[in-house]
Amino acid sequence: MLDHGGNLDLACKLFGGRAEDWIDLSTGINRQPYPVGELPMRSWTTLPSRADIETLHAAARSAYGTPAPVLAVAGAQAAIQSLPWLAPPGRARILAPTYNEYAPTLKAASWQVEEVGDLNAVAGADLAVVVNPNNPDGRQHDRAALLALTSRVGRIVIDESFADALPDVSLASDAGRTGLLVLRSFGKFYGLAGLRLGFVLGNEADVTALSAMAGPWPISGAAIEIGRRGLLDRAWAEATRVRLASEAARLDDLARGAGWTLVGGTPLFRLYETGDAVAAQERLARAKIWSRIFGSKPGWLRLGLPGDEIEWTRVAAALSAR
Amino acid sequence: MLDHGGNLDLACKLFGGRAEDWIDLSTGINRQPYPVGELPMRSWTTLPSRADIETLHAAARSAYGTPAPVLAVAGAQAAIQSLPWLAPPGRARILAPTYNEYAPTLKAASWQVEEVGDLNAVAGADLAVVVNPNNPDGRQHDRAALLALTSRVGRIVIDESFADALPDVSLASDAGRTGLLVLRSFGKFYGLAGLRLGFVLGNEADVTALSAMAGPWPISGAAIEIGRRGLLDRAWAEATRVRLASEAARLDDLARGAGWTLVGGTPLFRLYETGDAVAAQERLARAKIWSRIFGSKPGWLRLGLPGDEIEWTRVAAALSAR
Repeated sequence: MLDHGGNLDLACKLFGGRAEDWIDLSTGINRQPYPVGELPMRSWTTLPSRADIETLHAAARSAYGTPAPVLAVAGAQAAIQSLPWLAPPGRARILAPTYNEYAPTLKAASWQVEEVGDLNAVAGADLAVVVNPNNPDGRQHDRAALLALTSRVGRIVIDESFADALPDVSLASDAGRTGLLVLRSFGKFYGLAGLRLGFVLGNEADVTALSAMAGPWPISGAAIEIGRRGLLDRAWAEATRVRLASEAARLDDLARGAGWTLVGGTPLFRLYETGDAVAAQERLARAKIWSRIFGSKPGWLRLGLPGDEIEWTRVAAALSAR
Repeated sequence: MLDHGGNLDLACKLFGGRAEDWIDLSTGINRQPYPVGELPMRSWTTLPSRADIETLHAAARSAYGTPAPVLAVAGAQAAIQSLPWLAPPGRARILAPTYNEYAPTLKAASWQVEEVGDLNAVAGADLAVVVNPNNPDGRQHDRAALLALTSRVGRIVIDESFADALPDVSLASDAGRTGLLVLRSFGKFYGLAGLRLGFVLGNEADVTALSAMAGPWPISGAAIEIGRRGLLDRAWAEATRVRLASEAARLDDLARGAGWTLVGGTPLFRLYETGDAVAAQERLARAKIWSRIFGSKPGWLRLGLPGDEIEWTRVAAALSAR
């Protein structure tokens, strides 16, 4: 298993407690989730109908502001799992460091994978992957620069899993172009990662091919119903954007007080240089607050935003304690 | 789109009404579902943990009576979608007529597909597919005959999507053998098709390969929680088996009264020779009861079992009306 955020099993094993004792800030999942509400019984009992799925697709096109074909999948991760099979294996270039699932998934399907540090170095690849804004450092790329790359690679995948909080960075409106695929996550911004819902936005041929791979019923009835409600609720999304931006600054203040410096981030997570991430993670873990560290970057610690005021109080106490 | 049961969109378009006006007997999904109950908030909000998924796998091993490795997937259909990628494309033989997703899914991935009418004719294939009990005719195969085939094909997939009601037909206890994969559906017997949950039972190498294709979070938190509860509830399963067996006979009586003869079936669905399936489907549809017919077999009509007494009364009336 790759190291991921959200591995509270490991936190409990290393530092004790039950999962429910912990504040899990090891992911970028919003801890003030969209309200699940009541579900009609047929969301559970019947196979998702074509009409239900099309209604969800329309909601996604509206929320993401795109006229392009859209496919609902069981999380952005499900789209990543399908990418290696969209074309015969060739040369893939991934703008790194980034989300650690792309490289092994492509390698396992016989792709030759190179991680590059500069955006323009993806040119010439059969498949290029750019996470925008990037995880874990929040790096953002210019839309024009990304669009220019579509003619210099076989296919470019823009992973916008963290773009809901920063809609201006999104290429969704251009997703119908040949050679461009945009991935979106529902679970992170809407705080419902257990629902398993994400979207691929792309041109007709790619979306048709991905749909054939996903099969007729790739997502649950609950994902269809809650996803549709959430995506159409513009007021909730706008209020959440405002709240996350303000709370990200609040977390940065606490981190500064602990002597950490901001490396980057998005409104859903912050990346700090702590000097010694193992020690910083342990300091938080003693207060049952779980964080994400990175083997290749010994000072980096990534934190999601606390949810309610009880959580903020615990985080503030842990970061001010010496 | 292939023709499937559960396409109430089409029923409404052809015969009017809204989805909720119809009794959908076009599938083999149990209409007295396992109670969903309350879900903990974390089923919605957090990424499924490795420990949670392992607990579900243990429940599945216990319910299905197998020591073999198990993988939870988003419905038996999700396993079918992965099958073409387990080995390089070769010759596939499918025991037909059967569930209509296997052939196109394999063909789309460059497999050479042959449909055969006799079990032993699958011998020599790189990949053999046998649905047991079969959909739509309920045909059952001898366990020893199926096991003998494992040494005569590259890999044999036994689709046991309808085996929960007939546990004696299952090869689950032998699923760890090289060359054998067993697929199970949760949604049909437990009446929760919208949950998207199924299982693959197989040897370590195949299950590991399928798990790598499915990715780290292939199923929802709700599927993990409800699936675990349902699979461990032996009393519910046993009572449901007894009820379905008795109600299948009750439906056969009504069908006989309509002049139809039983072709076969399982306790979850019945297949009747009606003489004229289009007319028979229309007769039921006028009473807002939806059924499944088959282009290649002009007399065949498949019916799932009605749920509550209100549904039984409507079905009895439709089948006795002239």
